[in-house]
Amino acid sequence: MRFVVPSDAVSWVDYPEDSPFPIQNIPFGVYWSEELNGPRPCTAIGEYGVDLLLLANSGLIDYPDSDAATASLDGLLQVGRETISSLRKRLYDLFEEDNAELQDDHDLQSLAFFELEQAQMMHPFTVKSFVDFYSGIHHASNVGKMFRPDQPPLLPNYRWIPIGYNGRASSVVASGTEIGRPQGQTKGPNDDSPTFGPTKEMDFELEMGFVTCRENPLGRTIAIEAAEESIAGLVIVNDWSARDIQRWEYQPLGPFLAKSFATTISPWLITLDALEPFRIEGMKQDPEPLANLATTGKPHFDVQLEVLIQTSNSTKPQRICQSNMKNLYWSPSQQLTHQASNGTNIQVGDLYASGTISGESDDSCGSMLELSWRGQRPIEIRETGETRTFLEDGDTVIIRALCQGNGFQIGFGEAVGRIVATSS
Amino acid sequence: MRFVVPSDAVSWVDYPEDSPFPIQNIPFGVYWSEELNGPRPCTAIGEYGVDLLLLANSGLIDYPDSDAATASLDGLLQVGRETISSLRKRLYDLFEEDNAELQDDHDLQSLAFFELEQAQMMHPFTVKSFVDFYSGIHHASNVGKMFRPDQPPLLPNYRWIPIGYNGRASSVVASGTEIGRPQGQTKGPNDDSPTFGPTKEMDFELEMGFVTCRENPLGRTIAIEAAEESIAGLVIVNDWSARDIQRWEYQPLGPFLAKSFATTISPWLITLDALEPFRIEGMKQDPEPLANLATTGKPHFDVQLEVLIQTSNSTKPQRICQSNMKNLYWSPSQQLTHQASNGTNIQVGDLYASGTISGESDDSCGSMLELSWRGQRPIEIRETGETRTFLEDGDTVIIRALCQGNGFQIGFGEAVGRIVATSS
Repeated sequence: MRFVVPSDAVSWVDYPEDSPFPIQNIPFGVYWSEELNGPRPCTAIGEYGVDLLLLANSGLIDYPDSDAATASLDGLLQVGRETISSLRKRLYDLFEEDNAELQDDHDLQSLAFFELEQAQMMHPFTVKSFVDFYSGIHHASNVGKMFRPDQPPLLPNYRWIPIGYNGRASSVVASGTEIGRPQGQTKGPNDDSPTFGPTKEMDFELEMGFVTCRENPLGRTIAIEAAEESIAGLVIVNDWSARDIQRWEYQPLGPFLAKSFATTISPWLITLDALEPFRIEGMKQDPEPLANLATTGKPHFDVQLEVLIQTSNSTKPQRICQSNMKNLYWSPSQQLTHQASNGTNIQVGDLYASGTISGESDDSCGSMLELSWRGQRPIEIRETGETRTFLEDGDTVIIRALCQGNGFQIGFGEAVGRIVATSS
Repeated sequence: MRFVVPSDAVSWVDYPEDSPFPIQNIPFGVYWSEELNGPRPCTAIGEYGVDLLLLANSGLIDYPDSDAATASLDGLLQVGRETISSLRKRLYDLFEEDNAELQDDHDLQSLAFFELEQAQMMHPFTVKSFVDFYSGIHHASNVGKMFRPDQPPLLPNYRWIPIGYNGRASSVVASGTEIGRPQGQTKGPNDDSPTFGPTKEMDFELEMGFVTCRENPLGRTIAIEAAEESIAGLVIVNDWSARDIQRWEYQPLGPFLAKSFATTISPWLITLDALEPFRIEGMKQDPEPLANLATTGKPHFDVQLEVLIQTSNSTKPQRICQSNMKNLYWSPSQQLTHQASNGTNIQVGDLYASGTISGESDDSCGSMLELSWRGQRPIEIRETGETRTFLEDGDTVIIRALCQGNGFQIGFGEAVGRIVATSS
């Protein structure tokens, strides 16, 4: 089932039209409860988070595995797309203006509702496998232009398969986690030998990622029409990168330590159901994909993206990039079908990131590497007059995502990380 | 602590001099108990497996987390190197010829001992992260000669850092698991467009892997002198590969679906303690590694390796490769220190594979790609007159590893897999 909240639905919870969490959203996350001294699954409506276990304990909803899985959304993901949809439908009912069940239960409200602005949001689920695709075609093309200037910007395989690589799941961290500037080995083109030390080319990557909610056993593939049944929803992903380490290490086996030191995700799982009104065909694929990757309809999503930076000297963040998820050449369903096409097993809680989502214009680039074009056009921080080619210690990077509906918005929240100096 | 069993130690359990599991070994594994209807941790002595939980229940040993962790070695790995050493020392005491505790308890023996030849060995532990290094210098050099014939066989970074990439942990399988021939997209040099279907270039890779038994938190590095404190022991690894898929997909981000469909490991964790007598300096590293990767002493291990193949028409396996772990350029401690050098967190149960361990001679190559030199010199199956360039359906690949001691052997057991046809 797909449950789409009507665009004119109204909740008894009051919120402004530009709230990221209207009744059309109903996302899932995990917050730290001071009263109950632990992480607890929750949803959000307007300015409030709502503790799902307290709703379950009071009999208003069924929450899967509510005894065991209190610390994360793992139990929710495990039950799969249909049950998640049903739960979301039930939450819609409870928040809807004509429903009195929760609306009139002020005692339960005072227990289960909390102010999001004060809340500590937690890492939402256990990341089993982390795969990073490379489906942002403008990013791939920009990188090709920079590093292989004498060749066509895209390699011959790019338009035939969703290029990707395995990342490191252990270092996927919650939004807000400080990002230690990684050390690593680097070698300049004129250096006789490499040196070891903190990266000098710290970067972010603007990505979105989908989260799986269905196991697919070893040896089985996933038909593209069925792929979204395995996808619970999307999160924002910042795939932090150390470009100088990457340049020295990546041949011939791809990025390794340049990426694995940390990856930040946003706290809210935005369900595919909530994104239904924002489906788009996406860009034309040319050549036509082979049969197993061929899609029809609207497999892409119109999600507006922005990146902001705040240095330690500035008082407010400055936007440095505006992009959109429609800049992806390959859709989530194509990525997952490709991933499973060799028979590898899919686990519940796998995270598949999109690749860097750059647009076509200079101010829509999803990384410092592209924004500053390898340092040739530094970004100016207008408030302070500082410039940046790569990220410096104390810089905070904020990625936001949003779908603009008719009279409402679906917000993703933020993926935030601040760079801090490290010493081993 | 390191506990090394004296080379002249004798057990009251009788076994021949070429037993893989003498009292000097004492490995850890998991078997399926028919009586108790479940997977159970065990050790091995001579021809027998010994159920560790039954020894623990009878009070003879302390087994960590013996209530919860019955299904794998996860609980054992969690307690770390020192406690694993102590347990192994205690098992040595119980097996030693002068010790009567277990020797005289025939009731317990009849419960806890089982014949290895009849036993079903299981996947030994939950693989958290799987990383595959590329430290077999002759393999890297062979691949360079084949694919970049006009350049030096090794890339400039090879002798400065242990090159590696993240693999897929979910598809690491137990020895004996059938390996479905993966499907994937491939494109010949003269094809206009790629096609999707079963790989035509199915290959194995002879590797060894080490398993971690200590968490290292995000943001911390591991000093090379301390690296082995995080390593419980070694297993055999067969990193199955589909060469035609690999050729088409691997630029620019490295191997992905060509490797992730399955990786086979051997059932026994052979402890670093058991390998102490087989330490060697390893090959000279030139240039000297940078300070954080510089080792002294004997960080490598003299482990004899062989690969055998049995086709569906043949009645016995034929050896096609003989190699040795001393062909690794980078040691396990250098690999782990490098892995943690960017601050990524290490989990208990991470598996770090060595890379393909080819020797210098033609018959010491650790993959079909090299043995047949891209199909130019087919391997003959002497019994049947068949030839092989890559693996065919019905072929079984057996990898064995062994340390030859003075009057005893440390056996690793086998990593076995048979190729079967797949249809999605």
